[in-house]
Amino acid sequence: MSHDPADDTYRILDANGVRTWLARLPHVRSRLGGSADDWGVREVGDGNLNLVFLVDGAEGSVCVKQALPYVRAAGPSWPMTPARAHFENAYYRTVAPYVGRRIPEVYHYEPTHYSIVMENLAPHTLLRYGLIAGNRYERVGRDLGEYIARVAFFTSDLAAPFERKFDDIARFAANKALVRISVDLIFTDPYRESPRNRHTTPQLDPWVAALRRNAQVKAAAARLGQKFLGDTQALIHGDLHSGSIMVTAEDTRVIDPEFAFYGPVGFDLGAFVGNLLLSWCAQPGHAAQGDDRAGLRKWILDQIGAFWSAFQHEFLRLWRNEAHGDAWPAALFPGPDDATALQSAQKAYLDSLFTDMLGFAACKMIRRIVGFAHVADLERISNAHLRASCERSALAIAVELLTRTATFHTIEDVLETLPRIAQLAAGGEI
Amino acid sequence: MSHDPADDTYRILDANGVRTWLARLPHVRSRLGGSADDWGVREVGDGNLNLVFLVDGAEGSVCVKQALPYVRAAGPSWPMTPARAHFENAYYRTVAPYVGRRIPEVYHYEPTHYSIVMENLAPHTLLRYGLIAGNRYERVGRDLGEYIARVAFFTSDLAAPFERKFDDIARFAANKALVRISVDLIFTDPYRESPRNRHTTPQLDPWVAALRRNAQVKAAAARLGQKFLGDTQALIHGDLHSGSIMVTAEDTRVIDPEFAFYGPVGFDLGAFVGNLLLSWCAQPGHAAQGDDRAGLRKWILDQIGAFWSAFQHEFLRLWRNEAHGDAWPAALFPGPDDATALQSAQKAYLDSLFTDMLGFAACKMIRRIVGFAHVADLERISNAHLRASCERSALAIAVELLTRTATFHTIEDVLETLPRIAQLAAGGEI
Repeated sequence: MSHDPADDTYRILDANGVRTWLARLPHVRSRLGGSADDWGVREVGDGNLNLVFLVDGAEGSVCVKQALPYVRAAGPSWPMTPARAHFENAYYRTVAPYVGRRIPEVYHYEPTHYSIVMENLAPHTLLRYGLIAGNRYERVGRDLGEYIARVAFFTSDLAAPFERKFDDIARFAANKALVRISVDLIFTDPYRESPRNRHTTPQLDPWVAALRRNAQVKAAAARLGQKFLGDTQALIHGDLHSGSIMVTAEDTRVIDPEFAFYGPVGFDLGAFVGNLLLSWCAQPGHAAQGDDRAGLRKWILDQIGAFWSAFQHEFLRLWRNEAHGDAWPAALFPGPDDATALQSAQKAYLDSLFTDMLGFAACKMIRRIVGFAHVADLERISNAHLRASCERSALAIAVELLTRTATFHTIEDVLETLPRIAQLAAGGEI
Repeated sequence: MSHDPADDTYRILDANGVRTWLARLPHVRSRLGGSADDWGVREVGDGNLNLVFLVDGAEGSVCVKQALPYVRAAGPSWPMTPARAHFENAYYRTVAPYVGRRIPEVYHYEPTHYSIVMENLAPHTLLRYGLIAGNRYERVGRDLGEYIARVAFFTSDLAAPFERKFDDIARFAANKALVRISVDLIFTDPYRESPRNRHTTPQLDPWVAALRRNAQVKAAAARLGQKFLGDTQALIHGDLHSGSIMVTAEDTRVIDPEFAFYGPVGFDLGAFVGNLLLSWCAQPGHAAQGDDRAGLRKWILDQIGAFWSAFQHEFLRLWRNEAHGDAWPAALFPGPDDATALQSAQKAYLDSLFTDMLGFAACKMIRRIVGFAHVADLERISNAHLRASCERSALAIAVELLTRTATFHTIEDVLETLPRIAQLAAGGEI
């Protein structure tokens, strides 16, 4: 599974390499059409870990994603097994039966050079950049809520006998290199001094110092970090931020599942919510004459509400109709008393996912402000004072979510409380 | 991993087969001494799944355990992969560095016929039979508490980087056949009609019917069943009842870990507590003239207290001194505020194990009274009315533990409350 540098079958692809390789795959060749020499090949990757090529032929186009043997953002000095492409492919194949066209179609996986040939999503844009540009995508909250509900339910013990899950747990437990990144960059480094960390300095210095002294915050993050490693609830995407979602007005797609493993569902829920909250906090940094972003901010909060509502609705619908697993076997609950007990259990289960979602959302926000990898929502605010103000909002929201989790009973509680916290923090008042 | 019946390397061993095989293993041969023809070989297995041979030579003895390709108690009509011997061997090798002589020394594992050659524990007896005979073993509670604490801590994310745990999770996730037995026989069948179930009839009929109608009980069991499959806290033995513990007055050993996988620590804690409670409930059935078992019953409850106290003490000691893992990284908690937060977290963690322990103990008790596999503590009470009275006590205790878990804050709460519940139930008053 690991990349052996001496293995001469691995080659970093370039445009010609892509062309030569795809020309040898009949089903890809016919999809592209025309002569391979005429195919347009562009490298467009801007992520941390991979090369991404868009290939245009006479009749169609495909996307090629190759995992590099190092972290692209850091260069060859930070080696990283390209075997993560294997887990990306495995995730797509595992969830495909449940999510239909919410993921790109995979045409081919090439294990020798860790490359996936898949549907070219056009004219889709990354949700993150769409929100920075001030756009709205009316389906995205609902689509993502349903998506996570379906993956979480169908890969859990509620849906099928545990044997299938245990096989998949074993398979994805090998994705250690990427889980290691999450453990270090999300649950550890942000809460201590580390050469990999950075933040807007000097503006945030006292805030970051206070964060790293806040024992309640660190304990909450540590508890979630422990849960991240010990809760095999379902197959999770593992990196479901707004840069892993491609959108148009009519369509929503989930991409880049290379961090996938069996973990807590709240981690995926929290990734989406945390990144929408980051976008919400960053919007004042992107306002312009005649574009104050106030309406967009309201819309973002509404999307968080729509997201959680859609998740709950779909998850419960599946639990009522598709519970063929070993957990909560339907055969044990045939009577009216049983139905009441089962409904209580379902509510308790969703409450626990809700709590996890808020906590993981907070962890995701914090690591993007004081850790290694930041987000364009904030990085593109060139005025450091303005950026720091947005970042203070985000940190204040995250601290509130982590340390006062129990005060939030519904998503409405969250959406009403957080703007007040953020406003005080943005002005430096708390 | 699975047994292929066409694989002609697998042979069910007999005395001669054992002799011939061991004579070819130099280190075993020299341990036994003398001529192989003179070795005494006796089959002594009385478990559900295996053959067990004791081999006596001129200079020493060994024990040979072979996994059969079917459930021994049911015969060849219930096939069962003998690959479980592989997991038994893997468990012993994994925990050996942490538990010293609390497990038998393993001399050899033979994968072709799924047989382990190990230390012959003599003059040890199974704790279950020792308690039926009315004996006390002053170390057993403390030894088991420390044993579970050490295995639970050192195989968890508290002790070491998660990569080692993920590798082991993958390895033990293949032990599906035995986890399936637990899922069916502990968490499912007891709570519904099943041809595999039996109970003392007609005496317990109304009690069993009430149990299977009790939605709160079923919901509590289902919640624990879900946790059993989704919580990779640590490597657990998976079947740690009083028939998996061998004792003398001076020594305690844990055997038969073939159900091992990564699961909730409370499952092992609960197995021990549940089986001591079963013994406590059964003692009136073994009383005789001049041997009313009252002192022994008091001693059994004291052992439960000593067990939980030793577990807590050892687990916390290790957490304070050996925390080199990814969960709760010590480096994040350097200051005095941090120490307070960490202590709260440790208390919360132990509280949660305590709650799990009570719930799993209850599940273990119930399945032994209304499910497939019963225990000698109760089965050996030949008077059905007396046996039913003991079983009613046990069921009442289990229902109390499952449905009123939150009312028990300390082990003393448990040990004070349960005898009253049991006494009322034994007389049929509740």
